[in-house]
Amino acid sequence: MGVIIVSTYPDAKSISKVAHHMVEKKLAACVNYTKINSVYFWQGKIHDSGEFLALFKTTSKSKQSLKKEIAKTHPYEVPEIAEIKPDDINIPYLKWLQDSTLKGKPKKRHNSSKS
Amino acid sequence: MGVIIVSTYPDAKSISKVAHHMVEKKLAACVNYTKINSVYFWQGKIHDSGEFLALFKTTSKSKQSLKKEIAKTHPYEVPEIAEIKPDDINIPYLKWLQDSTLKGKPKKRHNSSKS
Amino acid sequence: MGVIIVSTYPDAKSISKVAHHMVEKKLAACVNYTKINSVYFWQGKIHDSGEFLALFKTTSKSKQSLKKEIAKTHPYEVPEIAEIKPDDINIPYLKWLQDSTLKGKPKKRHNSSKS
Repeated sequence: MGVIIVSTYPDAKSISKVAHHMVEKKLAACVNYTKINSVYFWQGKIHDSGEFLALFKTTSKSKQSLKKEIAKTHPYEVPEIAEIKPDDINIPYLKWLQDSTLKGKPKKRHNSSKS
Repeated sequence: MGVIIVSTYPDAKSISKVAHHMVEKKLAACVNYTKINSVYFWQGKIHDSGEFLALFKTTSKSKQSLKKEIAKTHPYEVPEIAEIKPDDINIPYLKWLQDSTLKGKPKKRHNSSKS
Repeated sequence: MGVIIVSTYPDAKSISKVAHHMVEKKLAACVNYTKINSVYFWQGKIHDSGEFLALFKTTSKSKQSLKKEIAKTHPYEVPEIAEIKPDDINIPYLKWLQDSTLKGKPKKRHNSSKS
């Protein structure tokens, strides 16, 4: 089954480094990240600061090792590591997730556009 | 029930075209898309390229036709088509989803702001 | 249990104001928001306009009061208020969510980076 792990990072540099690390170690097949604003309470006042939202795409088989590695490498003391299991995922993409994580070797995915 | 279908696209042009197509055909009531970075393994090396994350908002009744049309019109050979079923959704919005997809005609939603 | 409430807003000003309000009232521990494009059908034609996607991070205990307050303070007549329950969430973060919402007082979270 496909799984999405959600976390947030302080800057592009840290999430880009972690994303490369997870894909190299085949713990995630793909990592999407985007700039966000975050509003939260801390040290007695409200903060409204820039962060990056990260979506790690992996499989149920690799998710535990991925989550451990996210916790180990995360710059925050208390990072968000939330798991969302899609209710369904198309078979070719699921196969690509499986081939690109611990089990098998990566297969081509983006090389040819239909258009 | 409301449903969110998640996919990624190579550029704004392709997702904007598909989004208009799905809303015109009443397969999705609304499509949100935003710029992301994606890190993934392909043809023997790690890529860190710009993409667009797309969230198609539809109903359980229209989701199969929507997913088929996403696969048919997608520029990637192996696109991500992941289905996330929210655990709950407010009734007025669910009604608008239903009215704006295959079943009924669209009802006004954004026209007047309270503020 | 942790919960994510998803909604969309017309502009940064409105979501920033609502985000501060929810965190001050301890209905959400954190609110992430980011700029998106939205394509939807309204008043007889297709719109492709800028919006903001908002993710309110809270607990199952605070979610009902949070959803009521989102509906009460939302600038749209028919806003999206969708609840997504992650299938799993790391314990330290869940504890921070609980401490930062109705039940307890906020604990430090972001103060020290490991790097």
